[in-house]
Amino acid sequence: MSPRHSAEDAQRTRTAIVEVGTQQASIEGLDGLTIGRLANALGLSKAGVIGPFGSKETLQLEVLHEAVRIFIRRVWKAVANLPPGRSRLLAISEHWIDYLADCPLPGGCFITTASTEWDARDGPLRDAVAEAQRRWLDTLRADAEVAIRAGELPGDTDPAEVAFELNGIAMSLNQAIQLFRDDTAPDRARRSMARVLAAAEPQ
Amino acid sequence: MSPRHSAEDAQRTRTAIVEVGTQQASIEGLDGLTIGRLANALGLSKAGVIGPFGSKETLQLEVLHEAVRIFIRRVWKAVANLPPGRSRLLAISEHWIDYLADCPLPGGCFITTASTEWDARDGPLRDAVAEAQRRWLDTLRADAEVAIRAGELPGDTDPAEVAFELNGIAMSLNQAIQLFRDDTAPDRARRSMARVLAAAEPQ
Repeated sequence: MSPRHSAEDAQRTRTAIVEVGTQQASIEGLDGLTIGRLANALGLSKAGVIGPFGSKETLQLEVLHEAVRIFIRRVWKAVANLPPGRSRLLAISEHWIDYLADCPLPGGCFITTASTEWDARDGPLRDAVAEAQRRWLDTLRADAEVAIRAGELPGDTDPAEVAFELNGIAMSLNQAIQLFRDDTAPDRARRSMARVLAAAEPQ
Repeated sequence: MSPRHSAEDAQRTRTAIVEVGTQQASIEGLDGLTIGRLANALGLSKAGVIGPFGSKETLQLEVLHEAVRIFIRRVWKAVANLPPGRSRLLAISEHWIDYLADCPLPGGCFITTASTEWDARDGPLRDAVAEAQRRWLDTLRADAEVAIRAGELPGDTDPAEVAFELNGIAMSLNQAIQLFRDDTAPDRARRSMARVLAAAEPQ
């Protein structure tokens, strides 16, 4: 086998481990990721699972980054080229709700699960979860700031509060879908997000 | 030792196991509850930890019920005697925010953590988490119904949406406190909950 092929094979194995790990961790949590089960699912030895990453923690971080990439692809990519402001926030809301209602990960919102799993502990996983969530809240807040300056949202709106509330509605929706299997919840979340983003009264 | 004393001792041991288990599970999750660590913390054998409950799952259920009792004591007991309606929902909001801001459990809101931990699995733990959360949402919705009938909230308010939004704000607050250690978040949550519960315009 040429070195070129073996490097491609190694990359393919690494990608497969991260993909299966992301599915598994979305159900059982990042701490519930077991090397033995990954090895079984992929027909690898335990050493073959850990080897490409060097440690379980590095594998967990890769899985977290993959979950973030899936979210960005489904929610952010579709709106990234729209001009910032209220209409982009409304578009984000739609894609976010659709993502949670028809989630590519079996355990629902990965970051919400990872956040409650790691928020009371210290270390690189907690830091990575916090950074991913912080970046998303900052994205929402920046759009709210543009919307307020443009007079699209009421002038006394707190942009951080817009991000805080949209995030809360998404978490409540994720719970309604995952814990209660409530298929009326996406419409409820749509109304709630629209209320948070209600247009300023014309002057 | 008289039979009376030994029954009291057994009850005290059981209570101590549940109390320490509730603290531990609030950080590591109900699945992170390890009998070995509980045994170490309490100076008991592993058999002495499991014995009073018969199985780890029964112990996990007891720990979940204890966490629910702590929440009820801190958030519900103080308002249970108020007449139902908007003013009780505002009082609940205050106690709920205070509870999350100064949480007796080191991992913050236990039910939010347990919900994301169990929502993608089946079994008695998932059912118990769902039942506890469902009961709380029903309590909020019932008060919202009274408030709408009394004209305290706008007539077109959806009472289930009031419960859904208050719950989301509480989850967003819990994340801001636990993951971001953001001490401005309780005031933000107070404003958000007050907005959800904004009084109907006088007729």
